[in-house]
Amino acid sequence: MEVQNILVTGRIYQEMAHILLKEKIDKDFRFLPESEVSREDLLWADVYVGFRPTENFQFGNIKWVHSLGAGVDSFLFNREWKEDVLLTRTVCSFGQKISEYCLSYILRDLQCHDVYAWYQSKRQWKQVTPKSIQAQNIVIYGTGTIGQEVAKNLVSLGVKPIGVSRSGTAKPYFSQVVSVSRAADVLVKADWVINTLPLTKETYMLFNDEFFCCLQNAGFINVGRGATVDDEALLRSLEKRHVRLAVLDVFAKEPLAIDSPLWQHPNVIITPHISALTSPEEAVQCFLTTLKNIEENKPIVNKVDVLKGY
Amino acid sequence: MEVQNILVTGRIYQEMAHILLKEKIDKDFRFLPESEVSREDLLWADVYVGFRPTENFQFGNIKWVHSLGAGVDSFLFNREWKEDVLLTRTVCSFGQKISEYCLSYILRDLQCHDVYAWYQSKRQWKQVTPKSIQAQNIVIYGTGTIGQEVAKNLVSLGVKPIGVSRSGTAKPYFSQVVSVSRAADVLVKADWVINTLPLTKETYMLFNDEFFCCLQNAGFINVGRGATVDDEALLRSLEKRHVRLAVLDVFAKEPLAIDSPLWQHPNVIITPHISALTSPEEAVQCFLTTLKNIEENKPIVNKVDVLKGY
Repeated sequence: MEVQNILVTGRIYQEMAHILLKEKIDKDFRFLPESEVSREDLLWADVYVGFRPTENFQFGNIKWVHSLGAGVDSFLFNREWKEDVLLTRTVCSFGQKISEYCLSYILRDLQCHDVYAWYQSKRQWKQVTPKSIQAQNIVIYGTGTIGQEVAKNLVSLGVKPIGVSRSGTAKPYFSQVVSVSRAADVLVKADWVINTLPLTKETYMLFNDEFFCCLQNAGFINVGRGATVDDEALLRSLEKRHVRLAVLDVFAKEPLAIDSPLWQHPNVIITPHISALTSPEEAVQCFLTTLKNIEENKPIVNKVDVLKGY
Repeated sequence: MEVQNILVTGRIYQEMAHILLKEKIDKDFRFLPESEVSREDLLWADVYVGFRPTENFQFGNIKWVHSLGAGVDSFLFNREWKEDVLLTRTVCSFGQKISEYCLSYILRDLQCHDVYAWYQSKRQWKQVTPKSIQAQNIVIYGTGTIGQEVAKNLVSLGVKPIGVSRSGTAKPYFSQVVSVSRAADVLVKADWVINTLPLTKETYMLFNDEFFCCLQNAGFINVGRGATVDDEALLRSLEKRHVRLAVLDVFAKEPLAIDSPLWQHPNVIITPHISALTSPEEAVQCFLTTLKNIEENKPIVNKVDVLKGY
């Protein structure tokens, strides 16, 4: 594939411009915020680089779309894709970042940070025994790149994570992988469930009443996609103590609506989609690597299977 | 060495009794709280098992003292030791426990938990970029069993920890070990300093003005011994931002005095000596292993060098 006209948009377009222009690449670039991308820009472009399609998005002459995030649901979920357009995604240190995010909240809980902060505020010297992460049953939904990286980091601390995937195929770092349809057996013993799944037709609202009812006082961490969770079901599960603590980084609609009951729930931790922020440096590096692989007809490891949706 | 009369005291004496009596060991035991140990009990005993000497402690016929903690300063620091008495200490999963404690507070900070908790309370969706632990310069004082275990866990997450020890001898898991006298070079670049040192004549007040002045806005975690730190110097270093955050699990006098200014300092986290609590199960297991090694004349890996003090 030969490409010349590259349109770069999204939150970090300016920083990317700054880095890319220094590289002196023999291509024509346009760097624009999403709101200023015109129909003419879209017709001009061979390549579209961004976190999501602009509101006026059309394929025009675009041959290649490069997502600046790891999730590509904004391009594919409930949308038509043009058959011969290549879709690639940014996969850099997301797995490591997401691992550290998950670890931080699991360890915070096991080490009773909130209890001790309370005692400190009262000048109370009172011991509560922390729990070791090694004894925790941790179930990870999604055994792809990111799920594996989360599992790898957990394994290195002595955890034996269990994976849940569509097929239930064994994957590195997981002591066991089960298929979604057989997950109930492992969920009943889970201390934590981490969701790393992409949003697809199959995962939409996967975490519903049926799922949550399998849990017994577990922690639930969502670093996948918000729309995989039925928020009403999650709130019911918190009420019934199926879920003891929910740590949510992603939401069906972002920013989370100001009137969402999740904000003030005492057993819900909310972060604004920061578990795997794309840095401009990594974004540029991944884009350039992908561009090189495409132009040299090399394998494109970050190519999205448009039919699968990830 | 032959032993018959075993005196078990300390916080967990009842739980230890419960477990030990089930083991049907052919020895005579007395299980007592520290306050009820009499002179007669001490004269009766061949073996003393506890976290520290009782107030009325005397060696009498005691041939072996087994410390229920990893630190043995309560038996040795500013006290006379009887030359031919064996001193052993409990070393079980302390290293793993302390690692998880340290990790939990480092990750909490890097992942901006407090900032996000504040935003959540205001229903604000505002991104602050977390930092990766991989980019952190972490210096560990103490390269013994516990320091190595902390380093091992950090290495597994991609950190390259630097050790500081008396001799500066290279040790597993540390990318580099420097001697205490040369520590300034590594301290100036440190994002975190973790103290795992025992209390000895050499380490008493080691963390003083001179030490803290080498730091530039670093986090300081003390899981070693409280009396290694000059609290006044620490408070000054917090004022001058040499120390950005202090996480303290141990104190010169425990419980920490109710009027200590540390309690309410906004950049100090206090926990009540819980980073490596001895569980009764582990205590019994370690004691029995040590007993077996002693009776079978096998090497005693947890023997304390009384002159070194650890």
